[in-house]
Amino acid sequence: MSMRTHYCGLVTEALLGQTVSLCGWVHRRRDHGGVIFIDLRDREGLVQVVCDPDRPEVFKAAESVRNEFCLRITGLVRNRPEGTTNANLNSGKIEVLAQQLEVLNPSVTPPFQLDDDHLSETTRLTHRVLDLRRPQMQNNLRLRYKVTMEVRKFLDANGFIDIETPMLTKSTPEGARDYLVPSRVNAGNFFALPQSPQLFKQLLMVANFDRYYQITKCFRDEDLRADRQPEFTQIDCETSFMNEQEIRDLFEGMIRGTFKNVLDVELPNPFPVMQYSEAMGLYGSDKPDMRVKLQFTELTDVMKDVDFKVFSAAATMEGGRVVGLRVPGGGAMPRSEIDAYTQFVAIYGAKGLAYIKVNERAKGRDGLQSPIVKNIHDAALNAILEKTGAQDGDLIFFGADKAKVVNDAIGALRVKIGHSDFGKKNGLFEETWKPLWVVDFPMFEYDEEGGRYVAAHHPFTAPKDGHEDLLETDPGKAVAKAYDMVLNGWELGGGSVRIHRADVQSKVFRALKIDAEEAQLKFGFLLDALQYGAPPHGGLAFGLDRIVTMMTGAESIRDVIAFPKTQRAQCLLTHAPSEVDEKQLRELHIRLRNVEPAVKAS
Amino acid sequence: MSMRTHYCGLVTEALLGQTVSLCGWVHRRRDHGGVIFIDLRDREGLVQVVCDPDRPEVFKAAESVRNEFCLRITGLVRNRPEGTTNANLNSGKIEVLAQQLEVLNPSVTPPFQLDDDHLSETTRLTHRVLDLRRPQMQNNLRLRYKVTMEVRKFLDANGFIDIETPMLTKSTPEGARDYLVPSRVNAGNFFALPQSPQLFKQLLMVANFDRYYQITKCFRDEDLRADRQPEFTQIDCETSFMNEQEIRDLFEGMIRGTFKNVLDVELPNPFPVMQYSEAMGLYGSDKPDMRVKLQFTELTDVMKDVDFKVFSAAATMEGGRVVGLRVPGGGAMPRSEIDAYTQFVAIYGAKGLAYIKVNERAKGRDGLQSPIVKNIHDAALNAILEKTGAQDGDLIFFGADKAKVVNDAIGALRVKIGHSDFGKKNGLFEETWKPLWVVDFPMFEYDEEGGRYVAAHHPFTAPKDGHEDLLETDPGKAVAKAYDMVLNGWELGGGSVRIHRADVQSKVFRALKIDAEEAQLKFGFLLDALQYGAPPHGGLAFGLDRIVTMMTGAESIRDVIAFPKTQRAQCLLTHAPSEVDEKQLRELHIRLRNVEPAVKAS
Repeated sequence: MSMRTHYCGLVTEALLGQTVSLCGWVHRRRDHGGVIFIDLRDREGLVQVVCDPDRPEVFKAAESVRNEFCLRITGLVRNRPEGTTNANLNSGKIEVLAQQLEVLNPSVTPPFQLDDDHLSETTRLTHRVLDLRRPQMQNNLRLRYKVTMEVRKFLDANGFIDIETPMLTKSTPEGARDYLVPSRVNAGNFFALPQSPQLFKQLLMVANFDRYYQITKCFRDEDLRADRQPEFTQIDCETSFMNEQEIRDLFEGMIRGTFKNVLDVELPNPFPVMQYSEAMGLYGSDKPDMRVKLQFTELTDVMKDVDFKVFSAAATMEGGRVVGLRVPGGGAMPRSEIDAYTQFVAIYGAKGLAYIKVNERAKGRDGLQSPIVKNIHDAALNAILEKTGAQDGDLIFFGADKAKVVNDAIGALRVKIGHSDFGKKNGLFEETWKPLWVVDFPMFEYDEEGGRYVAAHHPFTAPKDGHEDLLETDPGKAVAKAYDMVLNGWELGGGSVRIHRADVQSKVFRALKIDAEEAQLKFGFLLDALQYGAPPHGGLAFGLDRIVTMMTGAESIRDVIAFPKTQRAQCLLTHAPSEVDEKQLRELHIRLRNVEPAVKAS
Repeated sequence: MSMRTHYCGLVTEALLGQTVSLCGWVHRRRDHGGVIFIDLRDREGLVQVVCDPDRPEVFKAAESVRNEFCLRITGLVRNRPEGTTNANLNSGKIEVLAQQLEVLNPSVTPPFQLDDDHLSETTRLTHRVLDLRRPQMQNNLRLRYKVTMEVRKFLDANGFIDIETPMLTKSTPEGARDYLVPSRVNAGNFFALPQSPQLFKQLLMVANFDRYYQITKCFRDEDLRADRQPEFTQIDCETSFMNEQEIRDLFEGMIRGTFKNVLDVELPNPFPVMQYSEAMGLYGSDKPDMRVKLQFTELTDVMKDVDFKVFSAAATMEGGRVVGLRVPGGGAMPRSEIDAYTQFVAIYGAKGLAYIKVNERAKGRDGLQSPIVKNIHDAALNAILEKTGAQDGDLIFFGADKAKVVNDAIGALRVKIGHSDFGKKNGLFEETWKPLWVVDFPMFEYDEEGGRYVAAHHPFTAPKDGHEDLLETDPGKAVAKAYDMVLNGWELGGGSVRIHRADVQSKVFRALKIDAEEAQLKFGFLLDALQYGAPPHGGLAFGLDRIVTMMTGAESIRDVIAFPKTQRAQCLLTHAPSEVDEKQLRELHIRLRNVEPAVKAS
């Protein structure tokens, strides 16, 4: 006989008069008028169970149960008495009159109430199993599953094949730091856990699988920020014989369909497409949050000869930039808020935050309120007003520094103001989904410290048609067939058309100052594969954790991962990582270095 | 414009008269009567492309192409000339008259012909990308994908949710050897890669997810046998509130449906169920190949007092066993074959292979031909003939030794004879699919060396109802709610109902001589979780690599894995594992031990 006939949360008036068997946990127990009410919970929801004294055995058992006891109940589905129905519950019109009550497993008193919304993350991660019983976490992980199934269905329908790539692979110290795995059989050698299946998926294209995907774990041993985990999950895709536009269209359709089918949200069709240069120009970011209705105004040329040194120095230095950020209605912003923003931009390296309040534009210089106005000549002032389009009552913030500092600081300020109460009250923020593609990334970024170019995306990204020669003559100008999908200021995913010709790949390695020997050592298997008629191919990878975090509105990606690590890369539940036996280390041909005797004697 | 309008292998007479654009590889190029024929290949198959001299540009390009060049061809679909159709090809009735031919990428001469069936595995794994282009490997990996999608659909329809468990987890040196990952942030500590998600899936049941699955990589650092890989893939499932029978029925349905939908094979419904004791008794194996129509005959009691010491000693020793294996028609087996079998069983530790040929049963002792008959008294001889049911012309092999040696040796002999030409000719082998469940495994096996019981399945397996007390009084007699699904002599998967009560779990740990402190250290998080109303739960895990190997008829699991490791745990394509920089080791707080300077200077 089956333990259960129905899920608790799915018992409705359709089952009136029937006897059901339910299994679940005591969510709440109330004694009321000589009768015991148990809210029994399973993954589908709650149902009210009534234990009355007419059945002494059941009643006695019910008296003994406490929260989180695991029960099996058999009983009769009946209408709740008039006036006691609960519209918030699927099962709110009925109750189950218990005829049998079996305690499948008792519970000690939980360390917290499951409906406590003010738990510290440490408490939640330490008692993760109980934390996962909470409806929010149940929803998060079920939505995560729905997303992956939608993605799989879409990719399947489009001819993509899930092919597993190795987890124990080769260390190629480029980009992030690898997690290493010592080899026992091959003494002194190490596997690396994959930072992504990038090269393997390219090899699968060369191997004629045509369309590949994988929802797979990737690993980066980096110091963790709020939205990072040592292991994270990518929706990794690659296709042959499609151009950039076709690839973008296809995967835009995947994301649009997923939002529609999982959240019933209609994303715009098509997504806007923005060049990298425009994104940096107008928003100081390659993942602009388009919900925020504020833009940069380029003022570098205007500021070259003003007396205000901060501006003129930035405007004339190599790689400097001056921008204005017009805040409509910002004239009403109190001084304290402006001061707070000044402190905020300092986080991003800005040395100050100049501003102009436009009180009466018609009055010219006299209508402006600002400590800096006196050092800016009329032509520049006029240009500021004209280019920003500032109106009476507006405020203009300025950023002037190296371009990176300006972009980071004023880009962050733009978002901060947009999301502020002020921004929301003044229509500077639209609460909606604003996806876009950012395209035409540069091939390379110049690494001042290393004195060389580094790949902006990764070294396997194809240059735009006609940009092959620039790889050798002027790498900084070469534009890549690379694209990022951005949603509300987050990068959901990114990818590129790849290099499919060995000669172009070699040019890129040369531009990156990777010599032939090093290239062969690290990427010989790729260069080799490209020689055998590698097809034109490209693809992209989405960050699943991030997509689900956005879709659930979770505060952290840790809330959409069943057993995440802390920012110290620890699992508070299992206490991983941990010490290991000396015998294990010996078998792996390694020993600890400069560490207090942290291993147990074997 | 799209690079391609159709897959090569899908161009059929339905497209007659249309212009198509195809992308693919030159499978063969033939010059014939002044015309060039190219068999163009993509993942869906071949199509014949005709390049005639009327189009000089196309013809000239076609002259330059060689095998494995990657081409884009635009042309007209037309009927093949009478008498030149190819019934083996989907596209065999048509050909494409090339109007444009673009070399997307040339190819150097491949190191082998793709249709060469006699490649060494080393060659294949070294040039894996080309090896994967071969139709057999394409089929294997596509079938693998089909299996996983069938499984996902089935599990989805049955309410199972895919939940990811950690790859960086805790080392619990029990069972196989862990792969370790040194922690950079937590000096001197190590993660382990999971041998299976066993404990996490149990925690997910305690956390009320009710039904979980995951198709996931598992890792065991063991010396590799033919059918093992350091990383392998499990279909891992767990459910709450279902009993053993329900669990078996459900997953039997999954496998039956998968075979039906992927291979169009009808597996029996229901699968036969066999007790572990019967499997060992009749076949000497807990995964008997039921295609082989041979069984053991238990003769231990019969042989206790015979003069033949090999038999009587085995029959009277603690843990000894004597069995007969009747081979119908085996009397015709030449002496050379019997000698070969004698050598074969020696591999399994058997010190010899006694046999009796039954020439004329009616003549009693005189009708038997055997070196051992003279030392076996009449009662025993009669019992042998009666119990084995041997007929004239049969042969009986004997195994006599410790039970393990007898089971291994005669079990293997049974399979060997069944699969031999002799076996197949004599109806001892049925070429079909023979699945079964093996159930009622013992909880524990006695480890002579360690002088203690070890878990036969794993320490989280529940005992049969009523066997809880045996855990303390007579652990060797306790039977587990454990089950294996076996197909044609391979274990496809196995699982158990788990212990859901902390007190029972503690009893099992005690039976395994794991004291409370050690249990807390290693499995504290599980014991803790069991206290909070853990539900009755159970599940199983299937070996995906093995299932697909069987379904494809591949010779090795390496043939159903895109990028496998060799038996030395190396990837011949990428040369993993490899040396790493001294800097990387330093960051991980480890150094090499007793290894020649295998690290490069940083």
